[in-house]
Amino acid sequence: MFSREEKGDNTLRILVATDCHLGYLEKDEVRRFDSFDTFEEICSLAVKNKVDFLLLCGNLFHENKPSNSTLVKAIEILRRYCMNDCPVQFQVISDQAASLQNRFGQVNYEDPNYNIGLLVFTIHGNQDDPTGVDNLSVNDILTAGNLLNYFGKTDLGCTGVGKVTIYPVFIRKGETYIALYGLGNIKDGRLKRMLHEPDAVNWMQPEIQDETLAPDWFNILVLHQKRTRGSPRDAISEFLLPRFVDLVIWGHEHECLIDPQEVPGMGFHITQPGSSIATSLINAEAKPKHVLLLEIKGREYRSTKIPLQSVRPFEYAEVVLEDQIDVDPRDEATIREHLHKVVNNLIEKSRQGAPTGSKPMLPLVRIKVDYTGYSMINSKQFGQHYVGKVANPQDILLLTRSRQRHQTMQESCNISEELCPNDLNQVTVEALIADSNLKLEILSVDELNSAVNNFVKEDDKTAFHACVQQNIEEAIEKESQSKSKERTSSQNLQTDTVIVFEKQKCSTTTEEEQQTIDSDDDEPIESSDPEESGSQQAGKKRRAAPGGGGGSAAAGGRRKTDLASFQRVPTKEDDADTAKKRRAPVAAGRYGAVIRRN
Amino acid sequence: MFSREEKGDNTLRILVATDCHLGYLEKDEVRRFDSFDTFEEICSLAVKNKVDFLLLCGNLFHENKPSNSTLVKAIEILRRYCMNDCPVQFQVISDQAASLQNRFGQVNYEDPNYNIGLLVFTIHGNQDDPTGVDNLSVNDILTAGNLLNYFGKTDLGCTGVGKVTIYPVFIRKGETYIALYGLGNIKDGRLKRMLHEPDAVNWMQPEIQDETLAPDWFNILVLHQKRTRGSPRDAISEFLLPRFVDLVIWGHEHECLIDPQEVPGMGFHITQPGSSIATSLINAEAKPKHVLLLEIKGREYRSTKIPLQSVRPFEYAEVVLEDQIDVDPRDEATIREHLHKVVNNLIEKSRQGAPTGSKPMLPLVRIKVDYTGYSMINSKQFGQHYVGKVANPQDILLLTRSRQRHQTMQESCNISEELCPNDLNQVTVEALIADSNLKLEILSVDELNSAVNNFVKEDDKTAFHACVQQNIEEAIEKESQSKSKERTSSQNLQTDTVIVFEKQKCSTTTEEEQQTIDSDDDEPIESSDPEESGSQQAGKKRRAAPGGGGGSAAAGGRRKTDLASFQRVPTKEDDADTAKKRRAPVAAGRYGAVIRRN
Repeated sequence: MFSREEKGDNTLRILVATDCHLGYLEKDEVRRFDSFDTFEEICSLAVKNKVDFLLLCGNLFHENKPSNSTLVKAIEILRRYCMNDCPVQFQVISDQAASLQNRFGQVNYEDPNYNIGLLVFTIHGNQDDPTGVDNLSVNDILTAGNLLNYFGKTDLGCTGVGKVTIYPVFIRKGETYIALYGLGNIKDGRLKRMLHEPDAVNWMQPEIQDETLAPDWFNILVLHQKRTRGSPRDAISEFLLPRFVDLVIWGHEHECLIDPQEVPGMGFHITQPGSSIATSLINAEAKPKHVLLLEIKGREYRSTKIPLQSVRPFEYAEVVLEDQIDVDPRDEATIREHLHKVVNNLIEKSRQGAPTGSKPMLPLVRIKVDYTGYSMINSKQFGQHYVGKVANPQDILLLTRSRQRHQTMQESCNISEELCPNDLNQVTVEALIADSNLKLEILSVDELNSAVNNFVKEDDKTAFHACVQQNIEEAIEKESQSKSKERTSSQNLQTDTVIVFEKQKCSTTTEEEQQTIDSDDDEPIESSDPEESGSQQAGKKRRAAPGGGGGSAAAGGRRKTDLASFQRVPTKEDDADTAKKRRAPVAAGRYGAVIRRN
Repeated sequence: MFSREEKGDNTLRILVATDCHLGYLEKDEVRRFDSFDTFEEICSLAVKNKVDFLLLCGNLFHENKPSNSTLVKAIEILRRYCMNDCPVQFQVISDQAASLQNRFGQVNYEDPNYNIGLLVFTIHGNQDDPTGVDNLSVNDILTAGNLLNYFGKTDLGCTGVGKVTIYPVFIRKGETYIALYGLGNIKDGRLKRMLHEPDAVNWMQPEIQDETLAPDWFNILVLHQKRTRGSPRDAISEFLLPRFVDLVIWGHEHECLIDPQEVPGMGFHITQPGSSIATSLINAEAKPKHVLLLEIKGREYRSTKIPLQSVRPFEYAEVVLEDQIDVDPRDEATIREHLHKVVNNLIEKSRQGAPTGSKPMLPLVRIKVDYTGYSMINSKQFGQHYVGKVANPQDILLLTRSRQRHQTMQESCNISEELCPNDLNQVTVEALIADSNLKLEILSVDELNSAVNNFVKEDDKTAFHACVQQNIEEAIEKESQSKSKERTSSQNLQTDTVIVFEKQKCSTTTEEEQQTIDSDDDEPIESSDPEESGSQQAGKKRRAAPGGGGGSAAAGGRRKTDLASFQRVPTKEDDADTAKKRRAPVAAGRYGAVIRRN
């Protein structure tokens, strides 16, 4: 294994892509090869950029039971690009049977009967998720054939909210150590509940034996879920994710927001690569598609976005008929004429944007027409003019009366700004805390939750007092053990608690309030399980110090994406006073402490 | 390629199995692993017996869109047994792109990125046959993953009967040369028509450059069709197969008739391995299941049948209630009691037959009950007694009134023994000739057929005369060219013709009559295409001389199966007078003449 490694090269290179949707529209005469062409381009970019591996974030396949034709094409592409003599220059040092869910229990390049030159790691998405008695995804087929390394598969069990333990893949290249956490798609609602529940999601961390020699791990989390940005209902908030993570790679969302963006106060960046193929004709999908070249050295990383050339051009426009001067409400012909003009302009635009020398592709064209107050035109008939000119003649026009809807929505928004008691009934303490981005480092969320339950349901009047008291005592004990600067006092903690309950009422928080809270707990403390205390301290070190308090504000600033140079993530040097004591060597292939989300 | 071959070893060892039906009853609690267990046993037998390759004759999968679970299990088994360092000691010397239908266009062991130790060759059956726009079978998925060598795939085209050219896989091991003809399942009715049609099925043969140096090819045909034995309607007659073949391996039929049996007058043997799993509970499937170890050296072969140990025991019995003395027609309880006794006896029998030391499996039990004249009992209720005792409690009893049907059938048989003009209307000349096993070596069947057509439909009174005359002239020309012994005269040929037409009327032939015919044409002559004359002679040499005439009768006798020693198939030494002139060197990887069935 070690012989494969080139000495002196410490930079791990990863190509990140997602949502390739292989087999999408495979029965469409024009578009049937689109998903395969772009996936092939992604693989060729991986080879061309000499990356160590290709990382996919779910929905590699458009469905979990793809046709034989889709499977054959996918296997052929992977075989063509992955099977070769190129040396693999990194090692997977974790317990592979735990982190890679296949019966052969190992990363694919370690099978001596296969010459793997390019590794592909993937989690599953919502469309290629495991199902059936054996809980199998289509990714398992490719893993059985040794072409994929499928990770992030969880078995939630059948009762209650469920419980998962996430075993990261530990990757080492020279002096660079990566812990790759994979969380394949779980129904958004369920995952949200799990992230609110204490102990439901357990993140394993490397075992630390000797604190002084521990390497600095760079923690990457790959997930495939709805993201709060567009669709708040049932989507996952970035603030629910664990804060020891350094970089989150977010699959499922098709919009390309690939430049890593900092999440305020959480200490990590998020990159959302976006799909490699447009599966819905909305504005977000019309933006140029990219993949990300990620270079990681120690705890610094550099990201470079690479545009995809093989993606079918997609032009999107919105037309409000009311606003058009050349359209006469009483004359349908003027509507058609105007829309034809718009379509032709878009076709022309796509032609000009095509890379020179390449075979021009029929573009996708979508016009969202607000026809409020005008008569509806036959969109099928309209599209027939564009057979052979656009790739989607059948659905160029999307006729809406969105203005009215918009007004209705605005009205309903006004209503929801008032307090709705029914909504509050459904919300747990964890959800309130998570949504309002409160950093509860001393109080345990689950204990707080059970205190609320005891207070309300069992009429236990001492519930809160007992909870606060217990947590304070534990925190003080911890603090004195770790000999950190005197910071925690029962006074501070009680302030914390008060703020929490104030927040519950309004359930929103401003940046300024956040900083007030953050400044009180910039030295987070883990749950109090005595068995885990050693490694919790290691975990603490790696967690990025949130916005407030001294040097850590600067650390947040340094993490902004800069394509020209390596970025620094907050490292142990940022809190140098405790760093040396906490270093410990990693036991290759062994998991240590569990880090719980809080 | 040549370095993989061990010098001095000329014996090619093949393990033959078929109809593994992977995924059969995968939702049955008890039987879901049966197909996989036996397939794994077959693979392990292949490894244990150090065969060169495993040859499967179709229906490796029970359906063409198997579940993800079935695909994963199949891939895992193949990977476990096929991927290793064992040297491959033979070469595939044909044009691989023509004979192996996959996009990589080569036999799997030649891909330098895979360590293939055990090769698997397969054709498709009727259940895993290629479908869809891309004409893909599930076998293509495994071929794309480089685990299978899928051959015998044909593209019939859409118009008319269709036309196929079968490119054999040429295999060489030392001095042994095998031409492996694969014919994946085609709808029986269609294939029957094609075999009757001239030029519809073309069998490619090795190109011969220098006659004196040509190796002796051993020709194997693998097919997957209904066989005439049980079901004459739409089944394929053995007599429709080309006679240059030496051994036919017949898939699809589940009954194990694995010892190669001679087909009288055709010069080849047939082995019918039978399925490795019982998919219908009939008597034929209750027989012990075997696979065949085939050892071929030059043109001699030895076959050894190996019993399969992992097959679920299956006991079958037939009960005619009328014949049972302890059953009272007026007392249903006595019927049940009697049947329970039978079932318990069968369970006991299967227990005794189980191999010692192995974990006993719940047996399959089927009783075909003829209840004519008795009241029907509830078979579901009956089966409930055997949950946990047999593998198929839900369908132990098959209640029939077969006796009555039998009588009706016998009556209808008597009718059909008379001449039925409607039946004759549907029959072509080729079918009559094929069914009655006439050896037409001088007259071309298709020309004869068109003569009949011309005579009947176009009222051409000279049709037969012209046909006979033309064929005689061509035959004489051929004979004088090849300088063989004076044997053909126009008198003989006309006798031939007379016999053919006599046969058409009664459409059956006895063994004695056959010999009379055979003795007239023990030196067959090919169709008269002048471009093919060279290789036709080579083909002629390999064709087994039929029953009659001199030394060739003895050759037929030698081909009977003898497990203790190698068998001889009729070789060039049998007609030594022409052998030396006809030898020619093989051009590796090149196809020569087309041999047409007639």
